Amino acid sequence: MENKRTDNFSEWFTEIIHKAELADIRYNVKGFIVYRPWSVLSMEEMYKIYEGELQKKGHLPTWFPIVIPESNFKLEAEHVKGFTPEVFWVTEHGNNEKFEERLALRPTSETAMYKMYALWIQGKRDLPLKIYQRASVYRYETKATRPFLRSREIFWIEGHDCFATEKEALNQVKEDMQMTENVLHQRFCIPFILFQRPEWDKFPGAVHTYAADTMMPDGKVLQLPSTHLLGQNFSKPFNIMFQDDDGKKRYVWQTCYGPAISRIYGGMIAILGDDKGLRIPFELAPIQIIIVPIYKDENKEGIIEYCNRIKNKLKEYRIKIDMSDKTPGFKFNEWEMKGVPIRIEIGPKEVNEEKVTIAIRTRKGKETVLLNELEKVIDMKGNLVTQDLRTEADNNFKGIIHNANSMDELKSILEKGGFARVPLCSIDMDGKDCADNIKAKTHGDIRGIRFDKNEKPKPGQKCIWCGKPAKVMVYVARQY
Amino acid sequence: MENKRTDNFSEWFTEIIHKAELADIRYNVKGFIVYRPWSVLSMEEMYKIYEGELQKKGHLPTWFPIVIPESNFKLEAEHVKGFTPEVFWVTEHGNNEKFEERLALRPTSETAMYKMYALWIQGKRDLPLKIYQRASVYRYETKATRPFLRSREIFWIEGHDCFATEKEALNQVKEDMQMTENVLHQRFCIPFILFQRPEWDKFPGAVHTYAADTMMPDGKVLQLPSTHLLGQNFSKPFNIMFQDDDGKKRYVWQTCYGPAISRIYGGMIAILGDDKGLRIPFELAPIQIIIVPIYKDENKEGIIEYCNRIKNKLKEYRIKIDMSDKTPGFKFNEWEMKGVPIRIEIGPKEVNEEKVTIAIRTRKGKETVLLNELEKVIDMKGNLVTQDLRTEADNNFKGIIHNANSMDELKSILEKGGFARVPLCSIDMDGKDCADNIKAKTHGDIRGIRFDKNEKPKPGQKCIWCGKPAKVMVYVARQY
Repeated sequence: MENKRTDNFSEWFTEIIHKAELADIRYNVKGFIVYRPWSVLSMEEMYKIYEGELQKKGHLPTWFPIVIPESNFKLEAEHVKGFTPEVFWVTEHGNNEKFEERLALRPTSETAMYKMYALWIQGKRDLPLKIYQRASVYRYETKATRPFLRSREIFWIEGHDCFATEKEALNQVKEDMQMTENVLHQRFCIPFILFQRPEWDKFPGAVHTYAADTMMPDGKVLQLPSTHLLGQNFSKPFNIMFQDDDGKKRYVWQTCYGPAISRIYGGMIAILGDDKGLRIPFELAPIQIIIVPIYKDENKEGIIEYCNRIKNKLKEYRIKIDMSDKTPGFKFNEWEMKGVPIRIEIGPKEVNEEKVTIAIRTRKGKETVLLNELEKVIDMKGNLVTQDLRTEADNNFKGIIHNANSMDELKSILEKGGFARVPLCSIDMDGKDCADNIKAKTHGDIRGIRFDKNEKPKPGQKCIWCGKPAKVMVYVARQY
Repeated sequence: MENKRTDNFSEWFTEIIHKAELADIRYNVKGFIVYRPWSVLSMEEMYKIYEGELQKKGHLPTWFPIVIPESNFKLEAEHVKGFTPEVFWVTEHGNNEKFEERLALRPTSETAMYKMYALWIQGKRDLPLKIYQRASVYRYETKATRPFLRSREIFWIEGHDCFATEKEALNQVKEDMQMTENVLHQRFCIPFILFQRPEWDKFPGAVHTYAADTMMPDGKVLQLPSTHLLGQNFSKPFNIMFQDDDGKKRYVWQTCYGPAISRIYGGMIAILGDDKGLRIPFELAPIQIIIVPIYKDENKEGIIEYCNRIKNKLKEYRIKIDMSDKTPGFKFNEWEMKGVPIRIEIGPKEVNEEKVTIAIRTRKGKETVLLNELEKVIDMKGNLVTQDLRTEADNNFKGIIHNANSMDELKSILEKGGFARVPLCSIDMDGKDCADNIKAKTHGDIRGIRFDKNEKPKPGQKCIWCGKPAKVMVYVARQY
């Protein structure tokens, strides 16, 4: 790697995408990129893990159409206002034949799904309805696009749930947030803070938006999965009703959840990588173990045979022997750059002594273990790589929150990067004017109040912009 | 089921889609349907199996953009001619802002991928390039659409391979056809015949098209996966070249392969189903084993506990206890209709005697086995269901080919359904006029010559339409 991750993150990010063959940015439609096998294989694992967790919590998979008639799309007023500027429209087919009604390429699927929900839900036995889909969505982003982090084609999962009561919907928000912790933090090693977003930064049509923000190496935040409490804002215009125990028809309460796999992968590149390249949690790695044979012509046969024995012993893992012509040193660098968690080196000494030399991506040095202890050691080393990555990411995540009590302090914190915690008059719409001014002066966005902690301003604390009594402690950061 | 599969197949097909909750056809864009969990769960298994096989054969997954600039699309003349009538065009974004160039929603991805291939392939070490993607494609079908069988949104896999020599490309065609046999026939239990299509029915831009045709219960054929030998027809306009051993630059040889998962599932419904409903091969079933407890209030607890013990014993399978309020008889019918391969019934007798009563979807009657033999028996029964389905489908597939030596014979065969084998002057373009006439008189399409057998006309045999000497024996059938 020519660039350092912490010194010039942006160039490092571009370099790793190219060198590790994660994506190709040369596709000739702006904002659309080609995802190459090395990233797709890990993203497929991410899908598998996320979908498995969703199914465990009672969600079932569906596939909804990619096109949404404009008339569906318009049913919820805030939603159409929020999303219309970003919609790709299908207007014709074949040889210039116009559709009577324009079709939106889904930017998100509320307005595709909820018309069907109205048909599917009749009584209480149809509730809760918990459904998700693995899908790609399309948003004509006007901000600068970046591979993985901000594209016009997003590979994601969207969960859309309906409940008989508001309480169940609120519980679902908590379940989603817990899932974000279990999957994103515990398994993908990406730390984050959960926020409730201010009123002016909600998902269009939501009552409240809750979102996970992580911090990139350059001190800017990246939004990861968010859950929206939709309340009855969609069930009313879409007429999703159930007959309650008392015989009366009532509107359902809804939530939706949207982990964007391609963006999460982008976060993983940035947060787990180092100056040698990519680093990948063990269970996500396309190749978990690379075997590098070190041989001369006269001992090649025996060494390759021994490598195959090892490969066979470890066949439950994704394992490969690098048989290419490159030098061992070149191979070491290449597989480190690609983030393979475990490297096994086999030379004549290992063969003679029935041993195996092991190096792991997160630690310096090598270790030699007996062949008959290999399975046990690999299992342990795999877990160790994941643990190391999580611990290091967690440590980097510490100390990124600083208190600011004046605009000058706020500005100086944001210049350095990270979160500034500041008192604000309000996160309801009456606080928007302050937020706009803060943004204009500092390029910082109000990320919201913490969801996981109850943080209140001290008595007498004033809004950092307008000077009125502060009702909330909010976090401010520059964002991707 | 109100309809009989063989008597009124079309109504049966509509009924099963509705009753087994496979899809909802009420989505308000013509030709687009909503795939519901019961079908999606099996189609996800199909993807897993197919992608696993492709990876075993050295294919790697990618994700290419869904939109293709019109200028890419136009690079191969036959391709653009063939596909333009079916393209959905994205022409604008946001509030009526036009794109400078129209974007096609991919009807297939040759013209998206091959521009990148030209960048990726330099030397011989970049070959063979074997890549696939799991994707959905969009075709504005003008024929009547049918759920799963003919939609405007198709969930499929497309494999796109490049080779240094024509011979390797031809071998790839054979590998693809073998994969169709291994996956579709052996594992999904769908029998088919492999054809080389006539010149006029090739994939637009291909040198040759090879395709698997299966036969539906109403005697019409359904096309399943096809492989196209593209030769250098795309590598020339897309400029995909490699430096050969002699230092010269040469165009690569290409193939592509397209198994359509949603359509294969439709074939599975039709071919494996019976008058009680769906039938699903064991490894594809969303629920492989359903446990139906049969209890009264006084013995409920013990029976449920025993059911849980069984569920736990068989936890490597997809297994569920039906705890709903319905009667056992109702449950039996419902799970038979949904095609669950194995049913376990547990009443007081089973609990007392530490036994289990088992019924399988493909055979009449029940069997009682000892609890401690259960795992062994389940494994065997699961295989038996799949075998039964394959054997029955194969048997139905026998006797569907009839020889026709005159147009009257041909017509009468096609009225009854199935394939007619007829002598034809040619499957090159000079035979097209005969094919058009045959189609006009009989509604039958020339499916091509067999790929798996060398069938030649007898000396002196004449083309069934024009009376000139027949060069080929072709199969004619009405199609979906």
